[in-house]
Formats: sequence, structure tokens, C-alpha cells
Amino acid sequence: MRAAVFHGPRDVQVEDVPKPEIEAPTDVVVRVTHTAICGSDLWFYRGDSDRDAGSRVGHEPMGIVEAVGEDVRSVEPGDRVFAPFVISCGSCEFCRRGLYTSCVDGDGWSGDNGGAQGEFVRARHADGTLVRVPDRYADDEDALRSVLPLTDVMGTGHHAAVSAGVDAGDTCVVVGDGAVGLCGVLAARRLGAARIIAVGHHPDRLEIADDFGATETVLGGGETDVVERVTELTGGGAEHVIECVGAASAMEQAVDVCRPGGTVGYVGVPHGVEDAGVPIFEMFGDNITLAGGVAPVREYADDLMADVLQGTLDPSPIFTKTVDLEAIADGYRAMDEREAIKVLVEV
Amino acid sequence: MRAAVFHGPRDVQVEDVPKPEIEAPTDVVVRVTHTAICGSDLWFYRGDSDRDAGSRVGHEPMGIVEAVGEDVRSVEPGDRVFAPFVISCGSCEFCRRGLYTSCVDGDGWSGDNGGAQGEFVRARHADGTLVRVPDRYADDEDALRSVLPLTDVMGTGHHAAVSAGVDAGDTCVVVGDGAVGLCGVLAARRLGAARIIAVGHHPDRLEIADDFGATETVLGGGETDVVERVTELTGGGAEHVIECVGAASAMEQAVDVCRPGGTVGYVGVPHGVEDAGVPIFEMFGDNITLAGGVAPVREYADDLMADVLQGTLDPSPIFTKTVDLEAIADGYRAMDEREAIKVLVEV
Repeated sequence: MRAAVFHGPRDVQVEDVPKPEIEAPTDVVVRVTHTAICGSDLWFYRGDSDRDAGSRVGHEPMGIVEAVGEDVRSVEPGDRVFAPFVISCGSCEFCRRGLYTSCVDGDGWSGDNGGAQGEFVRARHADGTLVRVPDRYADDEDALRSVLPLTDVMGTGHHAAVSAGVDAGDTCVVVGDGAVGLCGVLAARRLGAARIIAVGHHPDRLEIADDFGATETVLGGGETDVVERVTELTGGGAEHVIECVGAASAMEQAVDVCRPGGTVGYVGVPHGVEDAGVPIFEMFGDNITLAGGVAPVREYADDLMADVLQGTLDPSPIFTKTVDLEAIADGYRAMDEREAIKVLVEV
Repeated sequence: MRAAVFHGPRDVQVEDVPKPEIEAPTDVVVRVTHTAICGSDLWFYRGDSDRDAGSRVGHEPMGIVEAVGEDVRSVEPGDRVFAPFVISCGSCEFCRRGLYTSCVDGDGWSGDNGGAQGEFVRARHADGTLVRVPDRYADDEDALRSVLPLTDVMGTGHHAAVSAGVDAGDTCVVVGDGAVGLCGVLAARRLGAARIIAVGHHPDRLEIADDFGATETVLGGGETDVVERVTELTGGGAEHVIECVGAASAMEQAVDVCRPGGTVGYVGVPHGVEDAGVPIFEMFGDNITLAGGVAPVREYADDLMADVLQGTLDPSPIFTKTVDLEAIADGYRAMDEREAIKVLVEV
């Protein structure tokens, strides 16, 4: 089968690799039809994080069940499914409480499971990992484009909003206008926030934030002092801040625009933060809570999918470019050069 | 009047200084009868933090109202009162919601207000700052010794427990066996924790933790791997961890013994954390929430005092040494050398 393989910075190639097979009775093999390139894929792509040359990549699979192990109960061959960016057993203490990312037997889309940017993956713990899309929508391309972000970024943006404690009537600030930040705007709106201030560096992305329900947008990187502007808009900071970047500067900005006693919900994988540190003194003095982490998107998948399928939630505008699997290198390039917000890959 | 003055590392002297006076109609002058030396006083004492030579020190005043400004409504001359370690207006947004430490016109016990380690202080915003002790207990020395920690460490330990989300039936770990950590044990017990594991470095202090309600104690600093031991005791970490030290190593330990999805409540003024950083990667991967900060002890004072006065809460065993104001230098020395947990100063 064909799959994307990482060979080194800015070198992702599609090549022939072994097809994964059922190995355990709880396995499912999925024929991937749609997948995506993630902002976090850019870290190894750019050489900012280590990854073995020769490793398979991608972690946002959607497709059709090809084969099922004998203990699998939730899906059958032919079913339309998607999966979160991590594999989870579905039955341990942490999965039971919805913290699927802390599954005691969790796993990633790599190694023998295959990367999601390929023709097939093996879902270990299929009953705890795969989410079935109702048959009615199984071949509805528009619906599938809107469901696909539930594999990662939409669930992640939602986790940020939930972690920040966003509730009906609240004011919140969303730091970051990447795919996750934009999904954070959608999530905040869905949770009933009355006022959503989106902060970013790209006018075109802030336009999408506006479409997604931001009530105000603040463009940084130029002459505007973002912290000053948001502080002014909120009369001293927002009680709920969503940090969707992961960079030290974004974390600092998030804390700076947070009202004393407020909460920063963060979901960006920290990078650069290990050197700069989180702004602990500001957090301490203002009693700002830092909540969040790697998003247990499996926990949110059913609720969010219900909204997507009934048409009240549509994150698909984040896909500003679509490529075939064979052209995935161009997708990486487009995201690296910020030409695309997020790339959908048709397999 | 006489008051303690800081002159440089390990040099605190009692000398004659001007007595504070009523300057604004909301001021009260308090004749201090009891005060204390705080673990945080050791930072300037040891030269670990900057403080101007010649500055007055102490921030835990209890005494008798000497004079009141014409707008003061809550106290009269002769009343027994104590005050939190910060002055707060009592009427701004933050005071109204109980976050007195973020008061828009807050102040400290220094400069013209006088340090609390002296014969008199001026309480600006007296109605928002002072807490009146019921007349019945105004001269009850035993009661007053038990109330005095509400000026700081008992409220701070309570804030840590509240921030960590400790509730009835919970398991919690308390990192730190100083005065605040010991008060954290009391607070966790008061909130109904079923299991309280106290972690410290001093057998004598852990004995007090035991008296205060710890169900288990873990002595670190020797051959015991504290994180391993607590992880074993809790079967993978506690959902509620109280960090009462403020050092980077303590914060790291707190996160390490926190169960995925749990909360670390921290109240130790961060020091050393700016270099080492908080362990953001562990927090991120395990979705550990970091809550807390400088404790708004004014918010907790009435509730905690009610318990103290009815005899169900008694933090006074943290005072393992008592000195007269004139001998305060010996009190500092005793705390610096860890001979005393906390020193009560009779003025």
C-alpha cells in the first residue's frame, strides 16, 4: 500500500509500505479515505522536534472498516469511521472518566499501526478508539469534511474552551488563529460565550474567526499592542482565555490578558516553553489557573459529531487546501509556508 | 514606638521609628499585641530576595484598635482585631468576589503603614481589611494563639486545599512540612479529605502533620524516593495535590505525584521556578491543572475563625517558639536555622 514516510526535515515522500493486518482480536483495519496534515506535523517537518527517518506519519484517520478482529463489537466491515489522534482502550480508569489520552494502554498512529497519512491503518482497541459515523452520512462528502476535524483540531479547540471554563454568557479570548484556535472560537460559541475576542497574526484567518463567531478580532504582529488592546476591550482582562499555540510567547500573552482569578485553557503542545517557562509570577500574583493539556478528543467526539451532522457546527472552512495522498508533500509545503491553514488529504 | 527594621541579610533590629497615625477617614491604627515571623520573611533575611535596607518588616498583625478614622464602620477603639498579610479595600470587583489579593487599591504592611513586627500599624481600608475577634475571646490567650495563623499561613494552606479541589472523601497529598504545609493538612482534613499524605523533610514536623490529621507521612531527603512511594501509596498518584513550598523541586514533585486529570493547588511564592520552569510537559501530557496563587486569606478569615473559636480547628501547634518583640532577631535566627517551625512574637 501507499503511505507518507518522513525522511528528514522538509522531506516527506509517499511510497510503498507493508499493509497493516489484524494482529489482535480487538484490532480493526481501516481503509483510510480522508486524513489531514496537522500543525503539530510541522514540528518534525521543520526539524523542530525529533522523529526517526523512515517513520510513518499522520494521526487524523477517517475511512471505511476493512477488517475486524473477532472481539470487536462496535463496528463492522463497510462502516464509516474516524479515530482520534491517539488510540485508547476505552475501559481503563482514565478512559472511563473521559481522559482517553491518559489511557493505560494508549498508543499512537505510528509503527505497526501505520500512520494515518496512508491507505490503511490498524486501530488497536478498536471499540475504545473508533467513532462510527451514522450510515446516513457515510458517503456525504460535505458531512465528512466537517466531521474530519473531530479527529483532532475541533476536539482540541473544544478541550481548550472546556478547560478554560467557558460557559453561557462568558467573555473569552482565543489566542491563536491556526486551525485549533479557529476551532476554539467555534467551541466557545457553541458553549454560549457572549463575547469572543480572537487574537492572531493573519488577517485572512481572523476573517474565518469572524465567520466562526468571534465578536471581535485583534491582529497582532504589527503596531497593535495585543495585550493592551485586549485589556482595554475587556476592561482588565477576560476570565476565560484559550491558548491554542503552545509557544512561550502565546502562553505569556494568554496569561497577560487573563483577568485576576481567571483561567487559561491551553492545548498547544508546549514548545519553547521549557526555556522561557510559563509566566508563573503573573499567574501566582493574579491567581490565574492553568488548565488543559493534550486533548482527549474521543471524549468529545459523539457530542460534537451530533452537532456537526445536524448542521449547527461546521469546522470544515479550516481546510483551505485539499491534496491527494500522492501530492501530500505539496500539502506539507503549503502549511509550512502558511499558504494553507489546514490541508485535507484525499486518499 | 519600637519596631523591627531590616538592615541587610541576617540583620533585623528593633529600634525606635515614627508611630503611624490616622491619615485618611478609612484608616485604623492598631496597637499590635501579637505577630509572627513568616517563612517568606526568610527570603529577604537570607538575602534570597531584594528588600530595601531600613524597611519595616512583618505582615501578620493582631492587636487592639487604637484609633479609627471617621468613616470606619466595622470596628471601634478597644476592639480585638487581626488582619491578613495584605490590605484590601473590600469593595472593588475583586474584593467582592473574594479575591482580596487582587484588590485594585491593595497595599502591604510596609512603608507608612508600618510593618506588622512593631508596636503599631495603620490599616488603610480598615473596613475591608481588619477582622474583628468576638469580644468573648478578645483576651483569651489560647484562642488568640490559634486565631493568629489566620493572618497568613492557615488561610494560605486553606487556599491551597481549596485550589486543589479537595472535597469530602478525597485523597490528597500535601507537599511541604513548613507552617503552610501543616496548615494545608488541617485544611484538607477540615474539607473532609479521607486520606491525607503529608510529604516533608523533617520528622518532627511530620509528627505535627500526623497530629493535624495526615493519614500517612512520607519523609524525603533520605533514601526514600518520595515520588515512587506516594505513587505506590496512591496507586498512581493523587487527584489533589497541595504544593506549599514554592521551590521548583517541590513543584516538580507535586506534579509527579498528581494523578492524570488531577489538580495541583499551589500557594508557595515561586522561587527558583523562574529558572527551572514548571514541569509543563508532564502537566500537558497528564492534563494536570495548576491552580492557586497568593492566598486571599481575608476571604476565608470569618469561616476559619468560627471553627477556631468553637475548637474544631487549631493551627497553634505550628508556633514552636515565642519571643518578645525586642528579641525578634533570635526568632529570625531560629527560623533560619529550622530550629522553629514558626515564631510567635509578643509585642
